[in-house]
Amino acid sequence: MSPVIALTHDLIRRRSVTPEDAGCLPLIADRLARLGFRIEHLRFGDVDNLWATHGDRGPVLAFLGHTDVVPSGPEDRWTSPPFEPTQREGLLYGRGAADMKGSVAAMVVALERFVGAHPSHPGTVGLLLTSDEEGVALHGVREVVEHFTRRGERIDYCVVGEPSAKARLGDLIRVGRRGSLSGTLTVRGVQGHVAYPEKATNPIHVFAPALAALAAEPWDAGNADFPPTSFQVSNLNAGTGANNVIPGELVALINFRFSTASTAEDLQARTETILRAHGVDFAIDWHLSGHPFLAPPGGRLREVVSGVCRDLCGIDPEQSTGGGTSDGRFIAPMGAEVIELGPVNATIHKVDECVSLADLEALPALYEAICQRILT
Amino acid sequence: MSPVIALTHDLIRRRSVTPEDAGCLPLIADRLARLGFRIEHLRFGDVDNLWATHGDRGPVLAFLGHTDVVPSGPEDRWTSPPFEPTQREGLLYGRGAADMKGSVAAMVVALERFVGAHPSHPGTVGLLLTSDEEGVALHGVREVVEHFTRRGERIDYCVVGEPSAKARLGDLIRVGRRGSLSGTLTVRGVQGHVAYPEKATNPIHVFAPALAALAAEPWDAGNADFPPTSFQVSNLNAGTGANNVIPGELVALINFRFSTASTAEDLQARTETILRAHGVDFAIDWHLSGHPFLAPPGGRLREVVSGVCRDLCGIDPEQSTGGGTSDGRFIAPMGAEVIELGPVNATIHKVDECVSLADLEALPALYEAICQRILT
Ligand SMILES: [Zn+2]
Ligand SMILES: [Zn+2]
Repeated sequence: MSPVIALTHDLIRRRSVTPEDAGCLPLIADRLARLGFRIEHLRFGDVDNLWATHGDRGPVLAFLGHTDVVPSGPEDRWTSPPFEPTQREGLLYGRGAADMKGSVAAMVVALERFVGAHPSHPGTVGLLLTSDEEGVALHGVREVVEHFTRRGERIDYCVVGEPSAKARLGDLIRVGRRGSLSGTLTVRGVQGHVAYPEKATNPIHVFAPALAALAAEPWDAGNADFPPTSFQVSNLNAGTGANNVIPGELVALINFRFSTASTAEDLQARTETILRAHGVDFAIDWHLSGHPFLAPPGGRLREVVSGVCRDLCGIDPEQSTGGGTSDGRFIAPMGAEVIELGPVNATIHKVDECVSLADLEALPALYEAICQRILT
Repeated sequence: MSPVIALTHDLIRRRSVTPEDAGCLPLIADRLARLGFRIEHLRFGDVDNLWATHGDRGPVLAFLGHTDVVPSGPEDRWTSPPFEPTQREGLLYGRGAADMKGSVAAMVVALERFVGAHPSHPGTVGLLLTSDEEGVALHGVREVVEHFTRRGERIDYCVVGEPSAKARLGDLIRVGRRGSLSGTLTVRGVQGHVAYPEKATNPIHVFAPALAALAAEPWDAGNADFPPTSFQVSNLNAGTGANNVIPGELVALINFRFSTASTAEDLQARTETILRAHGVDFAIDWHLSGHPFLAPPGGRLREVVSGVCRDLCGIDPEQSTGGGTSDGRFIAPMGAEVIELGPVNATIHKVDECVSLADLEALPALYEAICQRILT
């Protein structure tokens, strides 16, 4: 069994259901320490994070991953037990196989090979791992970055191991992610009896035209790298349950997934302007989960990762900013260029999660080539 | 203590919280039986109803009332215990004092006096009482009327004792009520992740313009006796609770309070047309709680009751169709003319419910005069 497959097996066997680490980080720390990596255990709240670095100058190339996994769901729905790595027909099955213990193992093997071959490489290469990515993500990379910022440390290039591929390794890299802005909107009316509507103000009726306007608003046209900003009301609740009472209040949860063509401040201001223009009496509580980020076209890491896919996989990768968000949102604001490259994501978070053994065997060479092209 | 005050005391003391009767109906049945009334106990489901009649020809003048009351709420918030009749400063306090044990007592006393004075009156005078008006109202007057219809019995004139007055006895009579039409509307979308709106259909967004149109629609202009039909969304719910999921479905409870200027069928058809015009994929479950009804201007009972208020109270009463609905909605479809006349309704369903002792003393004479003018 090759080193990357063996290490992936070892990691899957550890039941690191978020935010548990179940020994994954110490296992990796020990391996990298033996090669001369400087090891920092950064514990915030009840979450373990690992920062392992080799080199003591800039530029800093960091690989970013997580060892926690989402729950398996009912184990008897799996063909083989989720925490028992099992190989069948060219695939390795197990919770986290694709998201993202396979990538983490490939990063470790790539770093071992790179540092073994270039013990005096220029710059710094590092591995940043958290066990709080799949859950609330409060004590993971978010706090690590705050810690780095306090001590004046920065990352120049960051490769995130999130499973990015559609059908085969190298067919898609993420060059950015949309931002996510949420709001809890409370519309105030005056409660009353449906038989006396003149004595009440129905917040549902007052809100309706504003809601129609918000849903129809073209927030922006997107740009070369991003689709247009999208607005969604995910939850809308009003009413006492009784059919003869006009409710006094309506609560809506709204969410923007926004491109670099808009700012969070602008979207907030425009939302409130539309509500005010429709005479809505409201309060809104905004929460910014992540700014949008983008590795600029022509950026060094973006060029290097694209080139590695072309040269080693024989594909010119699609350069996407689609999907949800990732821990890259915390790294990018440090001024780092962030690119995501990992295996096929078709089975992540599902029953019978798996990764292609061939892709997994190929992945360390991709990460190693990125080290070589950035740091030698 | 006068007979009407004494009987109201006796009724308040019985804790007839809907649908309990707590002995109110037998008490009244015994009194009327002694005067030669024919007594029918009509029990449907777990509900007692009483139909007491004197006479065996047409026309039939029925007095309609209920002995059940709404719950008192926390008794310690009352100045005196809700089921202990208490007189203070010209008012009689207790749950049901105004809604409508006072009216019921006045009806009994009026019928005793009328039948005592006119033992061979023409026509039939009757008292119809239920203990299921304040609750679900399934086994009360609704089923009594079905029973009457099956045996070919009818009511020509019906006086409902619901508290109708605003400030003093006789200042307002109800000459009709609006209809109530409810609908449970389900809007179907396609559930998805907010990061992939192109793969989902948000039912909140699809519904918004239709909702705005429904809320703005002028359903009718009302008429001489009714205000315009009113449309209200009382409950609106969509969403899984999570802010990253586009819901697959939205459910709205809607309610029309409608005048005789519209029909239920027409309102249903127009609602569905508006939804379809906005491309909404929906299902709607309609429930008609009551048709609108109206004692026509110039109708005999309407003239008699107005005249009684003028002659005995010295007020030309306002002729209103306002407010919620009443058990009159079940009687009117038999072809009966229905008028509501009762005491001041300011405290009904509230803590410290009360009725004016002077109004209560005066009320039997009003009901007796109606008997005399209709049946002699
Ligand atoms: Zn992941
Ligand atoms: Zn009542």
